[in-house]
Amino acid sequence: MKINKNFLDLEESYLFSTVNKKTREFIASHPEADVIKLSIGDVTKPLCPAVIDAMHKAVDEMADEKTFRGYPPEQGYDFVRQKILENDYLARGIDLQLDEIFLSDGAKSDCGNIGDIFAADNTVAICDPVYPVYIDTNIMNGRKDKIMLMNCTEETGFLPEVPAAASKAPDIIYLCFPNNPTGAVASMEYLKKWVDYANAHHSLILYDSAYEAFITDPAIPKSIYEIDGAKTCAIELRSFSKTAGFTGVRCGYTVVPHKLVFDGTELNKLWFRRQSTKFNGVSYITQKAAEAVYSAEGQKQIQQNLSFYRENAKLIFEGVKAAGFKAFGGEHSPYVWLKIPQGFTSWSFFDELLAKCNVVGTPGSGFGKMGEGYLRLTGFGSRERTIEAIERIKKTFGK
Amino acid sequence: MKINKNFLDLEESYLFSTVNKKTREFIASHPEADVIKLSIGDVTKPLCPAVIDAMHKAVDEMADEKTFRGYPPEQGYDFVRQKILENDYLARGIDLQLDEIFLSDGAKSDCGNIGDIFAADNTVAICDPVYPVYIDTNIMNGRKDKIMLMNCTEETGFLPEVPAAASKAPDIIYLCFPNNPTGAVASMEYLKKWVDYANAHHSLILYDSAYEAFITDPAIPKSIYEIDGAKTCAIELRSFSKTAGFTGVRCGYTVVPHKLVFDGTELNKLWFRRQSTKFNGVSYITQKAAEAVYSAEGQKQIQQNLSFYRENAKLIFEGVKAAGFKAFGGEHSPYVWLKIPQGFTSWSFFDELLAKCNVVGTPGSGFGKMGEGYLRLTGFGSRERTIEAIERIKKTFGK
Repeated sequence: MKINKNFLDLEESYLFSTVNKKTREFIASHPEADVIKLSIGDVTKPLCPAVIDAMHKAVDEMADEKTFRGYPPEQGYDFVRQKILENDYLARGIDLQLDEIFLSDGAKSDCGNIGDIFAADNTVAICDPVYPVYIDTNIMNGRKDKIMLMNCTEETGFLPEVPAAASKAPDIIYLCFPNNPTGAVASMEYLKKWVDYANAHHSLILYDSAYEAFITDPAIPKSIYEIDGAKTCAIELRSFSKTAGFTGVRCGYTVVPHKLVFDGTELNKLWFRRQSTKFNGVSYITQKAAEAVYSAEGQKQIQQNLSFYRENAKLIFEGVKAAGFKAFGGEHSPYVWLKIPQGFTSWSFFDELLAKCNVVGTPGSGFGKMGEGYLRLTGFGSRERTIEAIERIKKTFGK
Repeated sequence: MKINKNFLDLEESYLFSTVNKKTREFIASHPEADVIKLSIGDVTKPLCPAVIDAMHKAVDEMADEKTFRGYPPEQGYDFVRQKILENDYLARGIDLQLDEIFLSDGAKSDCGNIGDIFAADNTVAICDPVYPVYIDTNIMNGRKDKIMLMNCTEETGFLPEVPAAASKAPDIIYLCFPNNPTGAVASMEYLKKWVDYANAHHSLILYDSAYEAFITDPAIPKSIYEIDGAKTCAIELRSFSKTAGFTGVRCGYTVVPHKLVFDGTELNKLWFRRQSTKFNGVSYITQKAAEAVYSAEGQKQIQQNLSFYRENAKLIFEGVKAAGFKAFGGEHSPYVWLKIPQGFTSWSFFDELLAKCNVVGTPGSGFGKMGEGYLRLTGFGSRERTIEAIERIKKTFGK
């Protein structure tokens, strides 16, 4: 038996384990220090009451022979897909069909598993810095030498540039807006360039909009399908994790329009076959929870949490600016991308911030080479601790 | 962008959709008929009270900031893996470590995804008849021409034979006991032959024991690791679906011992990397449900349901024997593998049974060529309907 040797090409990711180890060591040697973590990428607010009620009801249904549910449909129950269709698409003027929406146990799974339906020899364009799963799953699928990194720098507002006409077009293009880790958002005009490019070159865009719920400006697209022509070139990945605090509940969905045809084959059909064969659907209780997110109370309640995180991000953004730093993101995103002062690397500034302010961030270099010189701070903490962290940063670094 | 063309090699599986279509059509043209489905492969009893209580408590924890849980560990919380370790392994004299157990959203996902860590050019030995997922996932991974079917016939008690010494050894061997669809079980002596063979040829066994909870004879192994030497040649797949009625809740686990080393690499490390990268763990609520299966009340309650299904299977087995049929399985398994009379194919007998008795089975030919001449009946229905179906079969076919 031979292993998939592509796995040996993976680099071990030590980013968050090193962040945690350094933090633990600092606390051990400074037991009096009151350490605040602005490194956290996970939600901290509990599930909203509408979701909790729906889950209790669903649990009770599973206790009764008359209402018990066994194997769910692999693509999700219609009751939840219908809500997604109506609220996330039809309401925004995007016409989709129910069978173009595939419910799953989360965007991370979909983002990795979607690679199953593509040939191994496709070239893949991926941003730097980036969410590491895009890189690692492509390496696992044998595309190590097929990855084309797209530098995202301050000069272009951390937006990757559409390749020049002369260069060889990538087959698959990963885009994520609002972006993790930079917090950058994409305008209609900017995304239109990518959609036109993909259609012209018969490339496929994998559009990760896991953070779309943070967008408040109606002019900023939440879905790639708000762009004319996207249905013939883009798959969209969505998540309830940040939208409704479902990180511990596990639910997301992927949209694969019928109009996506490559090699004469509908990608929708391939993804349906992949999911029917290698996946068995999402827990009924989780699906009822997802449905409840779209109720009137659910929508109001999740907005309260989202506003809270947004306000934290804004406070961090304004706080570090007031302390004299350059910073990006912090609007339509839970992330602030802090430019660290000259003379520091991402890791040496991480140490400095921990030592001087007892505040933990995430070194930008952990997200790729182009992340060097930056630190990611997040709005997922409590208000009190977030304000306290900002005060310390201002006191230490402010002029 | 090029698609994964291996998908085009898949045959469309119409088994259950055709069963349902024919049943619907029969009901439409015979509105007076009282149709009984003994084709169902899904549980029908509600979740047991211990599990329901645990889920309600977990939902409440998710409603409170102090007890809310975000991203779960990708491999499962220790609290549930510890219970699995103690109850399913240590209690049976099998020594495993906690990090050899990987919790997941179900055995179907694991069974498909595990292929990611193997090279595409491995040969694969698969039983005929068989659960179609083994075949389809290997075709998706490009192993269409690498599949070696192992005929399972009445002559060998539906057990695949260990290959002769002279023939080329398969790299990967799929075994499933108690078997779906035949209901066959494997003895210690029989499994020992496979384990010795796999170790001698450096092959890997994928052991699907999703139905182990149906075994009542202490002499029949529930785990492949009850066999000496299995830790160096076997991965085991387990499920809470049939054990505890979790088909709608989605939870299973896979055991990958550290001693499994191929190409100088621990498979445990590869599977850990696969799951950490392409999976984000199981819902906290589901994990608390799985933990509750192992409580004293949980164990008692799931045994009541299992006994109920077992008794149904036994009644079907004895009933069809009394009606003059040859039959297999029906013990240590929810499945009865009915040998159909001469002159019928699986599908023509399906039609005959539906027309004469208004009873629905699953044609054996849907599970592979060697399933032709058989029909699968299952013990997952209600007692009353199961008895009624048997009475009709006896009346129609009995001598």
